[in-house]
Amino acid sequence: MSDSTPALCPFCQKSTDDFFMESEHFGAIYNIAPILPGHSLIIPKFHHTKMITLEDEFLSEMMLFSKRVATLLCDVFTTEEFDWAIQEGHSAGQSLEHMHLHLLPRNPGDLDNPGAWYREIEKNHAKLDVFERRRVSEEELDEITLRLKKRAKGI
Amino acid sequence: MSDSTPALCPFCQKSTDDFFMESEHFGAIYNIAPILPGHSLIIPKFHHTKMITLEDEFLSEMMLFSKRVATLLCDVFTTEEFDWAIQEGHSAGQSLEHMHLHLLPRNPGDLDNPGAWYREIEKNHAKLDVFERRRVSEEELDEITLRLKKRAKGI
Repeated sequence: MSDSTPALCPFCQKSTDDFFMESEHFGAIYNIAPILPGHSLIIPKFHHTKMITLEDEFLSEMMLFSKRVATLLCDVFTTEEFDWAIQEGHSAGQSLEHMHLHLLPRNPGDLDNPGAWYREIEKNHAKLDVFERRRVSEEELDEITLRLKKRAKGI
Repeated sequence: MSDSTPALCPFCQKSTDDFFMESEHFGAIYNIAPILPGHSLIIPKFHHTKMITLEDEFLSEMMLFSKRVATLLCDVFTTEEFDWAIQEGHSAGQSLEHMHLHLLPRNPGDLDNPGAWYREIEKNHAKLDVFERRRVSEEELDEITLRLKKRAKGI
């Protein structure tokens, strides 16, 4: 996995500008290399690696916040179907030592089968400068973040 | 997906005997066709389909309970790594209209790659009498449930 020091952790560099929605201790960012449209990540604003060691009050906050984000994504990406996933540890596919919950809106036939997206995570943000998946441009990322931010106000 | 009426829902038939760990409104069952050793499911004791419509207090309870179950599984299956996932809707791979959270302990090299397990879910519990994955016997299921129940007392 990537270096775990906050100074070198890409997710520790994220701030309100990058979040399309946020709670007190968590933020939602659009995945820079989305597997499917709407693929977003929920991350703590503080550097933390594992869900299993997250304090109860933060875990509750994260999930209630995730539910609100999922509601927004379903609205914007016109679906009621999505995957939620956390990979804890390298063997589980965790690529960055900053915990993150994947939210992936789904639609019928969007991939060759419902489970295909999970393999795609590996072609991922582990190497932030080397993508096998298509990376969105800075402009596209700003545009989708702004679009989601505007819609989030009603959620 | 399978029929959504509680009378026909396999997860609605589960009770304390089947749970190796439980909270007030949630239970943990060992997957009858585990993808890997330790593969377990967190289910509400009441019939409910989607996490996105789960009331906040139940969502918090489910997550704090899931953390306890993950701690137990990591202890019993001697790892600190696991996948945590919910499939919401048919397109996301949800096979039964009773929400269930997958917890899958992971170890280095347990599958050909970290994401391979997700495809395996489809060979799944949708058709409880037709498995592509190996189904554990009644005796094996009783044995592992009892073993986990005993260990759960210290968690």
